[in-house]
This record gives sequence, C-alpha cells and structure tokens, in this order.
Amino acid sequence: MSKELVFGHQNPDTDAIVAAKAFSYLQNEIGYDTEPVMLGEANAETKFAFNHFGEELPRIITTAADEVNSVMLVDHNEAPQSVSDIADVEVTHVVDHHRIADFATAGPVWYTARPVGCTSTIILDLFIENDIEIPVKLAGLMASAIISDTLLLKSPTTTDFDINALETLAKIAKIDSENYGLDLLKAGTDLDSKSDLQ
Amino acid sequence: MSKELVFGHQNPDTDAIVAAKAFSYLQNEIGYDTEPVMLGEANAETKFAFNHFGEELPRIITTAADEVNSVMLVDHNEAPQSVSDIADVEVTHVVDHHRIADFATAGPVWYTARPVGCTSTIILDLFIENDIEIPVKLAGLMASAIISDTLLLKSPTTTDFDINALETLAKIAKIDSENYGLDLLKAGTDLDSKSDLQ
Ligand SMILES: [Mn+2]
Ligand SMILES: [Mn+2]
Ligand SMILES: [Mn+2]
Ligand SMILES: [Mn+2]
Repeated sequence: MSKELVFGHQNPDTDAIVAAKAFSYLQNEIGYDTEPVMLGEANAETKFAFNHFGEELPRIITTAADEVNSVMLVDHNEAPQSVSDIADVEVTHVVDHHRIADFATAGPVWYTARPVGCTSTIILDLFIENDIEIPVKLAGLMASAIISDTLLLKSPTTTDFDINALETLAKIAKIDSENYGLDLLKAGTDLDSKSDLQ
Repeated sequence: MSKELVFGHQNPDTDAIVAAKAFSYLQNEIGYDTEPVMLGEANAETKFAFNHFGEELPRIITTAADEVNSVMLVDHNEAPQSVSDIADVEVTHVVDHHRIADFATAGPVWYTARPVGCTSTIILDLFIENDIEIPVKLAGLMASAIISDTLLLKSPTTTDFDINALETLAKIAKIDSENYGLDLLKAGTDLDSKSDLQ
C-alpha cells in the first residue's frame, strides 16, 4: 500500500488540522501508510491547542500529486476547498460533517459523513468502532476541535453526539472542558494574535 | 420526525431491495419513521429469496415527493439511477458501495460508503455499531444480497468484509450459505423465470 496524505480544507481551522492528524493516526493503526498535512498556516487558536498539548503542527503542502497518488480528505469534500491539484489524485477516504457538493470519484470510496457539529466527533466514533485507543494528547486536540467548531457546545450546529464526544475526550485528556475551552476560544480572538494574522 | 422512504436503484437487484428493507428496519429501531420501497419489479432471484424466508416484498413507487419530503438511498447515489423526482426531495441518508457521482445535498447528510462487495455488508456493520439485533429472516435476506452481489464470494469485488459478513449472517439465519447460495443463484438464471421477465 503506497503512502497517502490526509488533509482538511484551505484556510484551515482547528478541526481541519486536528481531524487530519487524528484520522491519519487511526488509519496508520489500521495498517495504512499516511501522513497528516495542512493546506495553509494554522491560526492562533489552533497554535494555542497544539502548544497546550505539546504536539507539533503538520507540515504545509500546496500540491499533492507530486508526492502521492491518493489522498484522504477530512472536514471538507468540495474540490474548490481542497488542494489545488485534487483532480490529479485519487480520493480514497472522506470524513466530513458538511454538505456534499462538487465531489465525485472514479471508483468505490470510504465516505463517512454525519450531520454533527465537528469532524473530530465522527473520528472519535471511528476510533471506537475500530477498537483503537486514543493517545492522551490527541484526545486533547480532538476536544479542542469540538470546542472550536461548536463554540463550546453553544453553536446551533451542536448535537448530542458532540456533547458526548467532548465529555469522552475531556476525560481521556484530563482537562476541564469549560475552563480550557474558554482559554482556547480566547486565544482565537486575542487581539495580538489577530493583528498578527492580518 | 416525518416519515421517510428508503429505496435502492431502478431495475432493482437483490441488494437494492434487501438493503432498503434492512436499513429501514435499523432506522426504525433507532427512532426514525421509515418505509422500505422499491423502484421496479423484483427479479426471479430476489423473489426466490423473499419466498424462502417468508418475507413480503416492499411496494413499488415511481415518485417520492407526493408522499414524503425526505428519503434515504441505499445501493446507489447517482440521480439518474434513483427515483424520477429525486430532485424534489431531501436525501438525509445514503448507504452505498459504488463510486460517488452526480450527487449533492443542500445540507449535512448521513453518508456511509465503503469499497466492499455489497451494501448489505455495510448495513450489518451499522446494526453492530448501533447494537441492534438482526431478525432471523432479515439476516437470511441480507445473506442473499451478499451471495447475489458477490456471486457466492467469487466476484472480484468480494472483500474480507463480505466474507465475514456472510458467515455472521448465515449463522443467524441458520443456512448453509454454499447450498442455499447455489439455489439462489440458480433461481436467478432459471430459464422459465428469465422468459417470464422478458
Ligand atoms: Mn473546518
Ligand atoms: Mn469542522
Ligand atoms: Mn445493486
Ligand atoms: Mn449492491
């Protein structure tokens, strides 16, 4: 089995980057050879989460076909949101919580979409279904992604699946999701970081 | 929650009809209100399977929007293979083992696609993930769908998932999958039934 890249959408948010890291880890445990990458700079919120849990950010790519023949998409499926040369690689897996549009494959594919608040919520279920243990730091990152996408479970897109997933992940990561969540969201709206991004 | 129809593709094969029946049963157990239907006459092989396990075939529909606002698709996703007025209803769920093409949704959706030999193989996993028991007769029909789609596990599309699923289902249905499978495939190629279909 040849190597595959796993990535979320352009202008990545915390879920796009964390879901790539989590799904790549899961797929490697199952027996695939994958590497998580990202399609642009991480924002201040995402950097805060990776710093907090002592994890390294994936590297940034702008094209995929020069490295691999096939890829796995997380947190998006629409071609305009994906890597620039998406038409030149085969998509073998998708995990996503958005509408499906402008997406097609030549052959059968693994596609897991669910109408929940965060891709990392779905990936937690995939870990459980495959009976793979989640590392403590990764659980912290996945909790961060849910906090980010659901604005600490307050966005209208929040479902019971997200509420239960955050509780499970916070327990593994040994964090208080309310306290940590406010710090995380604050990091994303921090004036200094914002001017840094502009 | 308003009622939804569940159906496979036009010119239905055994998997298209059985997957609709199985997924509808599963969704009703989860709490949805669904009815399995089919988009055309069952073939001789499918009739043999339903007769053998003493089950009734779903009713045939030609349009959906006059009955429901939303539908669940199994064993297909491409609009030209679906109900004639598919553009007029919302697709809330898809379970399929084919390439994805000519498919789009306005909002988030449940989509479970896997590159295996039969939709009923995927649906068995969904029963297990949701901890729902499969009725004996339904297990027999789902085994029939796998036998049909994989030509008794001999087609090149057969995967280990299908092999394991057929073993599990045959045990629940208390059938010898080799003996029953040959009878089922023979019923589908029976000269009398064939001329009956022409
Ligand atoms: Mn995102
Ligand atoms: Mn997301
Ligand atoms: Mn079919
Ligand atoms: Mn099929």
